Amino acid sequence: MTAEATRVDAEKLYKFTMEALQKLGVPEEDARITARILIDADLRGIESHGVARLRGMYAKRIKAGIINLHPQAKIVSEAPSTATMDGDQGLGFVIGHRAMQEAMARAEKTGAGFVTVRNSTHFGAAGCYAMMALERDMIGIAMTNTAGTAVLSPDSLKSAFGTNPLAVAAPAGRAHPFVLDMATSVVAIGKVEIAQREGKHIPEGWLVDREGKPITDPTKRVWGEGGQLPLGGTAELGGYKGFGLGILVDVLCGVLSGGSATILRKKSREQEEILVDHFFGALRIDGFMPLEKFKKIMDEMIETLEALPKVPGVEKIYVAGGPEAELVRDRKANGIPLYASTITALRGLAEELGIEYSL
Amino acid sequence: MTAEATRVDAEKLYKFTMEALQKLGVPEEDARITARILIDADLRGIESHGVARLRGMYAKRIKAGIINLHPQAKIVSEAPSTATMDGDQGLGFVIGHRAMQEAMARAEKTGAGFVTVRNSTHFGAAGCYAMMALERDMIGIAMTNTAGTAVLSPDSLKSAFGTNPLAVAAPAGRAHPFVLDMATSVVAIGKVEIAQREGKHIPEGWLVDREGKPITDPTKRVWGEGGQLPLGGTAELGGYKGFGLGILVDVLCGVLSGGSATILRKKSREQEEILVDHFFGALRIDGFMPLEKFKKIMDEMIETLEALPKVPGVEKIYVAGGPEAELVRDRKANGIPLYASTITALRGLAEELGIEYSL
Repeated sequence: MTAEATRVDAEKLYKFTMEALQKLGVPEEDARITARILIDADLRGIESHGVARLRGMYAKRIKAGIINLHPQAKIVSEAPSTATMDGDQGLGFVIGHRAMQEAMARAEKTGAGFVTVRNSTHFGAAGCYAMMALERDMIGIAMTNTAGTAVLSPDSLKSAFGTNPLAVAAPAGRAHPFVLDMATSVVAIGKVEIAQREGKHIPEGWLVDREGKPITDPTKRVWGEGGQLPLGGTAELGGYKGFGLGILVDVLCGVLSGGSATILRKKSREQEEILVDHFFGALRIDGFMPLEKFKKIMDEMIETLEALPKVPGVEKIYVAGGPEAELVRDRKANGIPLYASTITALRGLAEELGIEYSL
Repeated sequence: MTAEATRVDAEKLYKFTMEALQKLGVPEEDARITARILIDADLRGIESHGVARLRGMYAKRIKAGIINLHPQAKIVSEAPSTATMDGDQGLGFVIGHRAMQEAMARAEKTGAGFVTVRNSTHFGAAGCYAMMALERDMIGIAMTNTAGTAVLSPDSLKSAFGTNPLAVAAPAGRAHPFVLDMATSVVAIGKVEIAQREGKHIPEGWLVDREGKPITDPTKRVWGEGGQLPLGGTAELGGYKGFGLGILVDVLCGVLSGGSATILRKKSREQEEILVDHFFGALRIDGFMPLEKFKKIMDEMIETLEALPKVPGVEKIYVAGGPEAELVRDRKANGIPLYASTITALRGLAEELGIEYSL
């Protein structure tokens, strides 16, 4: 974090977020779920998906009346281990939380539970849902498609879907859990915006222009033209694989739920901008092997991988979830660093809602 | 294919493979399963995982007595939707086929079925198992870890696991099925070997040397030093994500089965070189939504994606599974192209086994 960030106590930030959400009309239990997921993202260093979006994305949408604060979310189709849920355009955090619990309840009974969700809205960081499985000694899976298109095939001039993230979490014992939480694009667009603000160039392979040529000067990006390359980047570096992973996320979220593949969404502006679909899964570890043995092998694997010889200049080798676990420890003790722009947004939100800002 | 390739009738090649396997001592039904999967890989254009390996990999291992031709593969732990199978060091094709059938049988009952497998051996192309689900209108998943290590973290100087492929297949209606079948490394090592044979350089981002520096001249590769970069390549292009996907495959195959994460395998030479673990999954589509509706949306999605505007010089945009579906049509009609080196190997095998070579 740069010097401009101010550390704010995580519990205070959670309470502020709770209060703001309730003032916006979110029922208490739903506000609790939402605030917890937002603060968890901030604790894990995923600032792009934390309270920085509270005013500009969620509060704005709630005030615009395009998020249903009293959704009649329901299961519309099911088998013992699977279900499809209609989110009734509810707050994504609440719908996501409920669907992941549904997946885990089914896994509790049969060993495996999978729930796909249509008509939901932005649910924050996918990893937070996958990690819900850890408390129940399960492997957790979470994916979402995203509203609008941003990512293109390395062969195409037009974007086909969003950054379609996928997350998988698996518990360990004394080691940190394995938590893979990744956009299926090379980078999140936030990294491009940071480079632009800092006047820096970006590596070839992140973005292409309307002719499919690499953009290295982020100021040359034109909204609606070209797009972000999928993981792998160019064709010769395996971009087809990232493009395939992005489609996979859309198949499991958009198609399997009866929502819609991103590329097929109708252009009704309101829905285009907010409706998304999710996919959740849970596998009970003791449906496969003794839990303690699994955790022991996970510990040994993670510790062995993180002790491999390093490239000169690299401080530490990490297994996915490692850097976030370190950040959580630091931020729980020393507070969550908020940028000036986030503080301004939260102060503005407090004023708008007539609640106290005392962070 | 280059001019040196000779087209061979797929059914004749299948019968030859069947005969060779039976002569090697593989029981008839197991030989049928194995030959079918090998020929399917060749039909789909995955020559690296087809009959080209029949003599040098499978026949050699069978003759060395390190593959158990009469394995007592059994389920050692289970829940209604999950199971762990011990492959008893059997032929990977046979063990994989049986485990995938087990996953589908569980999905038939509960909607979802997942089977992890330890103590198996090389099973060929992962996509062939994921595709078994298509005939039963399920989504199929297949993964395997690989013997030995080849892929490293972009931060490390030492390889941690193999190219750990993952495959997912989902049915469509009139369109080709979606079949993602990818190594979690940037490229398969076969592509490096082809460049080396042709005296060409390889792109930066495929391989690094013992100091973690990019190798672009494939002749500079030293066995046992450096390694292949994971999908994404360097750190700034998302190599951490590919590294995370590789670990995920090892968690689901190696750890969850009670086999071993690749990095923890003991160095007993015989086992190090052949024992691997797999993971299979099946999701019944009608456990989520009506099958015909799913297929209809898949058709529309695939056809819309494949009709997007192309980068100049690109002939066609493909959704994963598209190029392979075209190759299957061509090869079923016109034969499978075999390189001179493969024909030599098969002729040699025929001679060795005393069977007729009449392809």
